[in-house]
Amino acid sequence: MADSAPVQNPPAEQPAPAQGAEAPKGPSKNELKKRAKEEEKARKAAEKAARQAELEAQKAAAEVDYAKDFYGKLPLNQSQTRERRERVQIASLNPNMDGQTVLLRARVQTSRAQGSKMVFLNLRQRTDSVQALLTVAPEKVSKQMAKWAASLQIESIVLAEGVVRKAPEFIKSATVGDVELHLTKLYLISGLDSILPFTVDDANRPEPPETEVEDVQFKRVLLDTRLNNRVVDLRTQTNQAVFKLQHAIGQLFREYLDSRGFTEIHSPKLQGAATESGASVFQVSYFKGKAFLAQSPQLAKQMAIAADFERVYEIGPVFRAEDSNTHRHMTEFIGLDLEMAIEEHYHEVMELLDGLFLHMFRSLKEKYSKEIETVRKQFPAEEFKWRDGPEGTLKLSFKEAVDLLVEDGVPREDLDDIDTVNEKRLGRIVRAKYDTDYFIIDKFPLALRPFYTMPDPEDPTVSNSYDFFMRGEEILSGAQRIHDAKLLAEQMRGKGIDPASMSYYLEAFKLGCPPHGGGGIGLERVLMLFLKLNNIRRASLFPRDPKRLEP
Amino acid sequence: MADSAPVQNPPAEQPAPAQGAEAPKGPSKNELKKRAKEEEKARKAAEKAARQAELEAQKAAAEVDYAKDFYGKLPLNQSQTRERRERVQIASLNPNMDGQTVLLRARVQTSRAQGSKMVFLNLRQRTDSVQALLTVAPEKVSKQMAKWAASLQIESIVLAEGVVRKAPEFIKSATVGDVELHLTKLYLISGLDSILPFTVDDANRPEPPETEVEDVQFKRVLLDTRLNNRVVDLRTQTNQAVFKLQHAIGQLFREYLDSRGFTEIHSPKLQGAATESGASVFQVSYFKGKAFLAQSPQLAKQMAIAADFERVYEIGPVFRAEDSNTHRHMTEFIGLDLEMAIEEHYHEVMELLDGLFLHMFRSLKEKYSKEIETVRKQFPAEEFKWRDGPEGTLKLSFKEAVDLLVEDGVPREDLDDIDTVNEKRLGRIVRAKYDTDYFIIDKFPLALRPFYTMPDPEDPTVSNSYDFFMRGEEILSGAQRIHDAKLLAEQMRGKGIDPASMSYYLEAFKLGCPPHGGGGIGLERVLMLFLKLNNIRRASLFPRDPKRLEP
Repeated sequence: MADSAPVQNPPAEQPAPAQGAEAPKGPSKNELKKRAKEEEKARKAAEKAARQAELEAQKAAAEVDYAKDFYGKLPLNQSQTRERRERVQIASLNPNMDGQTVLLRARVQTSRAQGSKMVFLNLRQRTDSVQALLTVAPEKVSKQMAKWAASLQIESIVLAEGVVRKAPEFIKSATVGDVELHLTKLYLISGLDSILPFTVDDANRPEPPETEVEDVQFKRVLLDTRLNNRVVDLRTQTNQAVFKLQHAIGQLFREYLDSRGFTEIHSPKLQGAATESGASVFQVSYFKGKAFLAQSPQLAKQMAIAADFERVYEIGPVFRAEDSNTHRHMTEFIGLDLEMAIEEHYHEVMELLDGLFLHMFRSLKEKYSKEIETVRKQFPAEEFKWRDGPEGTLKLSFKEAVDLLVEDGVPREDLDDIDTVNEKRLGRIVRAKYDTDYFIIDKFPLALRPFYTMPDPEDPTVSNSYDFFMRGEEILSGAQRIHDAKLLAEQMRGKGIDPASMSYYLEAFKLGCPPHGGGGIGLERVLMLFLKLNNIRRASLFPRDPKRLEP
Repeated sequence: MADSAPVQNPPAEQPAPAQGAEAPKGPSKNELKKRAKEEEKARKAAEKAARQAELEAQKAAAEVDYAKDFYGKLPLNQSQTRERRERVQIASLNPNMDGQTVLLRARVQTSRAQGSKMVFLNLRQRTDSVQALLTVAPEKVSKQMAKWAASLQIESIVLAEGVVRKAPEFIKSATVGDVELHLTKLYLISGLDSILPFTVDDANRPEPPETEVEDVQFKRVLLDTRLNNRVVDLRTQTNQAVFKLQHAIGQLFREYLDSRGFTEIHSPKLQGAATESGASVFQVSYFKGKAFLAQSPQLAKQMAIAADFERVYEIGPVFRAEDSNTHRHMTEFIGLDLEMAIEEHYHEVMELLDGLFLHMFRSLKEKYSKEIETVRKQFPAEEFKWRDGPEGTLKLSFKEAVDLLVEDGVPREDLDDIDTVNEKRLGRIVRAKYDTDYFIIDKFPLALRPFYTMPDPEDPTVSNSYDFFMRGEEILSGAQRIHDAKLLAEQMRGKGIDPASMSYYLEAFKLGCPPHGGGGIGLERVLMLFLKLNNIRRASLFPRDPKRLEP
């Protein structure tokens, strides 16, 4: 390229005045004029530059960030130091703390600048939030600090120091609305590296009633989108409350049973044979052979009874390989199972289970009303109703339940079994007639129940078994079990099961086993129906169904 | 055949005396003598028969079973009736009840006749037993009843009614030795249909020390025999106590964490990808695709932290497809897992975990000394020791632990990692030097830990991780985790894991996650080591290992 470039002549130089010889000619009038102009121009330029420099110096002086140690991104916490400085919970803030300086870690729920001198932040911890504000002030909060705070992405995690102040008026956008936090320091602990799929505010909005035309004012976050981005979805106040309630149900279950002589057991989920029902069992590659995932702890808990445990319960996953894509089926859910020896009659178990549910309902209402209210804001529902008086829980026989449905117009010939549609219908009939969302159906036809169900002593077509219902959906199934090996083997053969395939189980009853009964509760179903969440996936942390194995 | 049979002549008949015609001759002298003899013989025979009949009638009268309603096999309990009659626990019997009639259901531990008029029975309920006796008495206890009682197979389940009596002297063979039960009624609820593989007495004998020559006086029941017949094995007083203690550990774990703001979660065991380590994961057929069994709730509990749960725990099965046939490995065990956000330093987690263990040890010692004593009878062991004074739990750095081993003679070049043999050795060194069976090792080399472990801020070869030990075996592993998505992806790649294969997990950290840490405890290991059961299978109800999937 250089080669082909045209050779440029050197710029013409002003000829230098010759020294000696001939004296040069004086400049022309035009020439003088021109020179004076140029000098004037240069002087002005110099003056301008000087002024400019002075201004810039002044501006620079003004912009020295006196707050630079009070904000910014913290280095990655690798446990570098430990100051043991107390950090507070937003829920603990109150007007009596007016004037106190506190330190807390929270999410930025919202961040909004008001002019260049003020920033409002909503800081969130789980179900609690507080308004924080940052006001530019000499030596304390700089404009740069305010600008930085206003630029924080929502859902960032910050470490905030501030002075608690009584709120001039109640702040409706915060759950702790009677105080605000006047920020003095604000650091970023963890920022975002990705785009939020939806905001927590959007995810927390009330669900439109299923029948209503969609409200277009706000973005509605669909269930699948939520589940694909469950980590963000779980941050809503609703979900924080839902899972506190899930914890509570498990706790109440254990509390009730612990105080009644039950032992908690853990039975294996890996099974040597596809036992209860071959069709809906997951198969596992087990070294060079195969295993199966337990569809319930049924066999193990009965064996525990044969092993003299007397009363046992288990809380653990159960697996169902059913390709059911409904609002109430998952392939993995948590079973609250129990089994107990009975002395005289299987109603001993049924009544204990009833007592357990009443204990749960009462305790939830008494101790968790805040969480129930929080959920109700997003999922409006009539309060869950049960009969708590001396008349006790409504108990219907299967026959009586069928009669109620027939009375209501269902053809009797459709009622060999009560399907889910008729279950819901029955729930509505019972609610209208008995004013309860909770009831028991006893004495199911033997043909509808598993092989280990004890037949009725008088009518061999009926069994000593029961289901419990909430809002017209089954949440517990239980029965007296057969504790006699001969009858058990007979019933197995009757259902097409080879007793040899369950020899370990059968052997337990050959070695002496007390009469016993029990039941299995679906944790997520109880939670879904108590809160009317309408889809069981909302009651599971990371739900699994035939189409979902992640996250 | 009939055709070829020889035709037999009809037997010759005595010729009948001819009627009329010739008058018969009179009998000869001999003949008369013979007749007289025959008559005498017949008379005597008749007399004898009459006497016989009389005797038999007398005997029969004597044998009318006046007690026949007081014993025998009950019909199969199908909940025919409900008398609501109280049944008592053996443990509740005491000399103050002298003279009271009680009813109880129990196993026949032993049954022994003394002559034909007395039977001694040892009746058992779980860890408790009482001596019962049956004495023949008119109108009350018949000989037949005593004979029936003496014939009861051991391990039968009976319903016994009797009068409580102060024992004339303490009965050593029973746990409730200051009373005995004078039986008035005894019914069989459930008998045996099979031969007992071993007696519960045999299964409950003290285990010989591993080094000692086998004691041949008694039949020793080997572990495999026990596990093959686990239902009988679990009936021993030892096992009843072991599993009460297993329940207690879970309860204490929850109690400690519930009171410290933790939420119990249930994470799915079915995973879409083989996550933590592809090598030791079980594969499941999942409809037309596949799934994997979770090797721990690690990813889920960290995602719960990113979802603002702050502090979570889980009690649930974890699955390891490791072909390890050792005393301390199972393919399925119960993980006690927790994870929590940290404010400043990961020692916040480590100290909470330490507090949790101290709470467990203290509570077990205080509230479960009876069960611990029961187990110790079969598994003699020095009492579990921990430092409970102000000096606190012994905490060693990995480097200090290595130094202790080197001092003890282990070549330093063997100590890049501390293998199980050196772990045990370290346990002995620590016990000798610091008088404790419980200690913590902190600051493991980063290379030994999973990809999600946070590196030390100063030395990148070391990590913010710890293990807890009991009697020289690891029972907890934990660490600060990486909460920064970029560093996490980097560490994954460093360990040969494609970050894309764990995108849901990684995404959780891209959306803001607080610094956090946690740990996982093996429930059965804690139980085994606290009680020194020497094999983890003894601490699992129905253990699973590479060779065992049943019962």
